[in-house]
Amino acid sequence: MPIIQSVRWSPGGDALRIVDQRRLPEEYVERDLTTVEEVCDAIRTLAVRGAPAIGVAGAIGLAVVAASIADRPPAEFAERLERAANAIRCARPTAVNLPWAVDRMRARARADADSGLAPRAVAEALRAEATAILDEDRAMCRRIGEAGLPLVPDGARVLTHCNAGALATAGIGTALAPVYLAAEAGRRVSVYADETRPLLQGSRLTAWELSRAGIPVTVLTDSMAASLMRGGEVDLVIVGADRIAANGDVANKVGTYALAVVAHHHGIPFYVAAPTSTLDPDAPDGDAIEIEHRPAAEVAVAPAGPLVRVHNPAFDITPADLVTAIVTDAGVSRAPYDFGRRAKEEGLLPSTA
Amino acid sequence: MPIIQSVRWSPGGDALRIVDQRRLPEEYVERDLTTVEEVCDAIRTLAVRGAPAIGVAGAIGLAVVAASIADRPPAEFAERLERAANAIRCARPTAVNLPWAVDRMRARARADADSGLAPRAVAEALRAEATAILDEDRAMCRRIGEAGLPLVPDGARVLTHCNAGALATAGIGTALAPVYLAAEAGRRVSVYADETRPLLQGSRLTAWELSRAGIPVTVLTDSMAASLMRGGEVDLVIVGADRIAANGDVANKVGTYALAVVAHHHGIPFYVAAPTSTLDPDAPDGDAIEIEHRPAAEVAVAPAGPLVRVHNPAFDITPADLVTAIVTDAGVSRAPYDFGRRAKEEGLLPSTA
Repeated sequence: MPIIQSVRWSPGGDALRIVDQRRLPEEYVERDLTTVEEVCDAIRTLAVRGAPAIGVAGAIGLAVVAASIADRPPAEFAERLERAANAIRCARPTAVNLPWAVDRMRARARADADSGLAPRAVAEALRAEATAILDEDRAMCRRIGEAGLPLVPDGARVLTHCNAGALATAGIGTALAPVYLAAEAGRRVSVYADETRPLLQGSRLTAWELSRAGIPVTVLTDSMAASLMRGGEVDLVIVGADRIAANGDVANKVGTYALAVVAHHHGIPFYVAAPTSTLDPDAPDGDAIEIEHRPAAEVAVAPAGPLVRVHNPAFDITPADLVTAIVTDAGVSRAPYDFGRRAKEEGLLPSTA
Repeated sequence: MPIIQSVRWSPGGDALRIVDQRRLPEEYVERDLTTVEEVCDAIRTLAVRGAPAIGVAGAIGLAVVAASIADRPPAEFAERLERAANAIRCARPTAVNLPWAVDRMRARARADADSGLAPRAVAEALRAEATAILDEDRAMCRRIGEAGLPLVPDGARVLTHCNAGALATAGIGTALAPVYLAAEAGRRVSVYADETRPLLQGSRLTAWELSRAGIPVTVLTDSMAASLMRGGEVDLVIVGADRIAANGDVANKVGTYALAVVAHHHGIPFYVAAPTSTLDPDAPDGDAIEIEHRPAAEVAVAPAGPLVRVHNPAFDITPADLVTAIVTDAGVSRAPYDFGRRAKEEGLLPSTA
């Protein structure tokens, strides 16, 4: 079952290899990126997207740049590396993973340089660090999949929203990880993919990566999920998350909340799958999570005027009481959620969260 | 307040004048249609759309054709008129209004011809009949508006789906009629318009006609309505209907059911506004209403394959228990609905229903 690898090292190890998601699903194009400009451009234009995936892309990209300047004197090497790190770090503003990954790479470079390593050795260390970030992301996806596997029985018809799959991570995804592992385990599983307006990540990306992996998928408009549930055609819902508050309120792609309400109305389980790094103990509840509002042009079909406005939040908040369970790489949590306390007392959350 | 007139006589009375809805909202183009081919083409390609509007368009179109052949001998006139009626009647298969209007015109023509009227006089009678159909449609819209007016208080923020406005009728619409009359009465009213995937009637048409009439409108994707309601920004929902079963179950544009569920979850009134001709006493409940499935290409962004299917029903069923009230030209009905019995015993429903 060939699950797509959206972010990785090029075979020669001298470039960041990505699947260009701007071209999907019409064309499958792999691109090898070797310069700061190429890496930033790919992140900025959504050639690579998904919070975990762009973190890994930033790390590998920075390691590639480091290798290309390893013949410079230490001071110039450090200065150029710092400039590259800053540029990559700011390529997109929202996801926490990109600055986190770049900062981790930068800390490694500084520590190694401070301990007297030459540029060539620092560049080698950065290669190892980026590979570690890549491997950790893959392992995180697989652990989410294993934790969520019991929720996806044989014959399950799973509805999902947006793309929280392999294209959004370096591994097998978050929301789709249990689906992939269920198929791998020989269970018959099929997916309903909301097209996910306004940017169509569901019809463009989720449908593409699932069908490529041999999993049957049916695309529908976001507005059709409710009547599908009423018809008894959906067994469970799994979505990803962009941020999860301490009380279990979930911020995710807009439309998630509507799905949670209609799933609740029909008694259908509603699961959220996300890495523990998504748990935010500093946000007591969903009200503390700021919602990004995006350009009107993504929704409007005609220029807005004084009497025509556009409402275009990128995310919405699903209150915890509508979430049947939250699946992370640390296991399955059920209500009442308390990610704040556990984070502090039991060290469940990674220090980077 | 210039509410658009989407279907009417041309000023000279020799053509069917329509607003070409294929060009909206980018361009406002009026077209005068004078031949069977032009009328059928306009209906088939959705230049004119909305069940009441295409009924009126069919009637005026047939009257225009009749006038153009009124100099022929009676037998040729009758034969040509019959051919025109058949062509127009079949231009679109779903809405009941088009065959109803054409059949009414045809019955009038036959009765007049049977009583010895010459073609010129029959053509004149058909002009009067078409004008009657037009006027009745306008009056029906206004009565719906008057019945629904108390539901739209000053300051109301109304959410609607698809286009059940002036563009869908010869008058001021069905779902939007109470909104127009509220504005006419000096109440401050604003509308949230679901864009309405897959064909975007909300962002293309509803936003256009409301803003043109001076009513502020905000466009959103269908998936955003729930979080808007959670934020307390919606006071009531009004939608139209394509068919209403005897028990009050409502068939309307897909996505209506999801809206009804999320409105119910938030305790927000959910109103359906439609002409009494939409009430179907022969359908005991929503299960008896057949749902049209439309081409995959309306939803898909890439060719479907053996593993990628598309779910594209044009309508869904909203069970009566989620409908706060049904507003028709006969007044406001509340649960328990019984349109079957009332239709028979009290003559509430027009005989054409």
